Amino acid sequence: MSVHENEEAVSIAVLGLGEMGAALAIALLDAGHSVTVWNRSAEKADALAGKGARRAETPGAAVGAADIVIVNVKGGAVAMELLGAAGASLAGRTVVDLTDGSTEQSRATGKLANELGADYLHGQIMTIAPAIGSPDAVIFYGGPQQVFERSEAVLRALGGRATFVSSDPGVAVLYGMAVHDIMWGLLNGFLHAAALLGNAGIRVGDFSQQVEPSLAALPTMFPMLANEIDRAEFATPFGALQHHLPSIDDLITESRARRIDVDLPTYTRNLVAEALAAGHGHDSYARLVERFGRG
Amino acid sequence: MSVHENEEAVSIAVLGLGEMGAALAIALLDAGHSVTVWNRSAEKADALAGKGARRAETPGAAVGAADIVIVNVKGGAVAMELLGAAGASLAGRTVVDLTDGSTEQSRATGKLANELGADYLHGQIMTIAPAIGSPDAVIFYGGPQQVFERSEAVLRALGGRATFVSSDPGVAVLYGMAVHDIMWGLLNGFLHAAALLGNAGIRVGDFSQQVEPSLAALPTMFPMLANEIDRAEFATPFGALQHHLPSIDDLITESRARRIDVDLPTYTRNLVAEALAAGHGHDSYARLVERFGRG
Ligand SMILES: NC(=O)c1ccc[n+]([C@@H]2O[C@H](COP(=O)([O-])OP(=O)(O)OC[C@H]3O[C@@H](n4cnc5c(N)ncnc54)[C@H](OP(=O)(O)O)[C@@H]3O)[C@@H](O)[C@H]2O)c1
Ligand SMILES: NC(=O)c1ccc[n+]([C@@H]2O[C@H](COP(=O)([O-])OP(=O)(O)OC[C@H]3O[C@@H](n4cnc5c(N)ncnc54)[C@H](OP(=O)(O)O)[C@@H]3O)[C@@H](O)[C@H]2O)c1
Repeated sequence: MSVHENEEAVSIAVLGLGEMGAALAIALLDAGHSVTVWNRSAEKADALAGKGARRAETPGAAVGAADIVIVNVKGGAVAMELLGAAGASLAGRTVVDLTDGSTEQSRATGKLANELGADYLHGQIMTIAPAIGSPDAVIFYGGPQQVFERSEAVLRALGGRATFVSSDPGVAVLYGMAVHDIMWGLLNGFLHAAALLGNAGIRVGDFSQQVEPSLAALPTMFPMLANEIDRAEFATPFGALQHHLPSIDDLITESRARRIDVDLPTYTRNLVAEALAAGHGHDSYARLVERFGRG
Repeated sequence: MSVHENEEAVSIAVLGLGEMGAALAIALLDAGHSVTVWNRSAEKADALAGKGARRAETPGAAVGAADIVIVNVKGGAVAMELLGAAGASLAGRTVVDLTDGSTEQSRATGKLANELGADYLHGQIMTIAPAIGSPDAVIFYGGPQQVFERSEAVLRALGGRATFVSSDPGVAVLYGMAVHDIMWGLLNGFLHAAALLGNAGIRVGDFSQQVEPSLAALPTMFPMLANEIDRAEFATPFGALQHHLPSIDDLITESRARRIDVDLPTYTRNLVAEALAAGHGHDSYARLVERFGRG
């Protein structure tokens, strides 16, 4: 009998006790749930047993008593192997797979779980292990919405921002990739800028404090960009691609003069120059989505 | 006699009435200042005259009556040409050069202004023309701090966030470049992610709404990164470079499967792989600042 709608103690199995799996198990114990753990290398269960978890000898035994089965291991192939090992004992339970991988992999894992009679959610963890359990920690979930809703109270113990994104588990994976994609772009730009500033003897901390309003405002561009992309209408009277080019050239000139990397700004310049050559000079930067859409 | 400390009407010359120069002149008129305008193509002064500006026949004549001389034209070479044309009539005035270019160019323009007996500020405009005059509009200023402070009330009419950054005019230019550098990184990441989502039939607006907390949190990384860079200490127990690699590989695999651009994630992968090969796997992503510091 599942009791997790009522925020009461729920019986949960955690398969995989690596850095992340251990953090997940601890957060569930801290929330007062009844937790059974299994890990390939049995010694990693010791620390958890010391905190009140039950230990199981096999994935099947761990699953036996659980309403919710958390799977967090290295790669989707291992996750499927563990579900296969648990087999028929999964029937009637809810598998919450928090293992990173491709959209196809999460769908395949979900298919296997369903074939074994279990409900399936994929969760894409958007934080590092020590942040698990915090109210700000984000996890994107994909799978049947009613399964998410009935598990939500438990899932919030793992990360306060448990966010349902789609009935398709693959979409949760894709959301995670998209956020990371944006993050890497931002990190690369920030570190290139930091190299430029550092070369001029400027402390990056001073810069980021002084320009804080400009940096904080960067994410406010997204709704406007998204709107242009979703409507596929890019014409803009101000700040069009043609106006980006001279500023990028200034950045390249300055980088070259300071013997700072020019590859990154040159990459951007080529994207913009290509769009100008295609006649998109009066369009917003969002026009470049079409360029990225070509493999 | 300068009255601008008291937020009273100040006599201001505006040299250059392109898209941006016209916006600057209008904002100053709106703030109640006495504005004299000059533009190479004289007809662009007509609209401003209709709004209450005085017209001058030459840069020298425009400068004649002004406490503050705003210069906003296409490129620093033109700015220097105009200051040269105004010549001795600049003595005792404050030149505020809002023309984009390199750090060297702004310093050279400042040197010329000083030689002609004028104080000099370089302002780096961080917004598009229609936002000029708004309380949120950011302009970074470099030059003698007391010159900035005595002109500040006037400068706030151009953009509410008039930000003094350095006694070196070149640093204001550099701050502008750095913010743009970060912005292009972010834009490229966002548009690549948008292409990935679009290919899966997901509206980018839905995504950016659903993941809003994750996107809004991105700039909160900066103080931590800045601190690591300024201390040149990159070791981190969590989220180190070695953990980025599998996620980047997932992104590349997914991009390839969907026939989305793989160049951008591959660029990032190469940066990370190079750092791992150099033994930096346990360091934070901020370690890559060293890579960008090499030209
Ligand atoms: N750590 C983080 O901060 C973080 C953040 C976001 C997402 N994640 C994701 O969370 C998942 C786990 O990461 P982690 O950091 O916890 O990794 P980890 O510390 O390396 O742990 C890997 C786990 O997978 C198990 N495993 C590997 N191969 C196995 C096999 N063939 N059969 C059975 N079990 C196997 C390991 O068991 P043994 O102990 O026996 O080796 C261990 O429990 C990954 O998908 C990762 O991308 C982690
Ligand atoms: N527009 C924006 O949204 C924006 C945003 C940020 C920064 N900026 C910066 O503001 C500055 C002006 O940009 P803008 O957009 O206003 O450009 P613009 O509309 O093309 O106007 C260029 C101005 O420069 C003048 N000019 C060009 N060559 C000249 C010469 N040889 N002698 C005398 N005057 C000359 C033009 O005079 P004519 O009218 O006679 O051609 C015009 O007044 C640039 O540094 C730009 O990067 C603009």
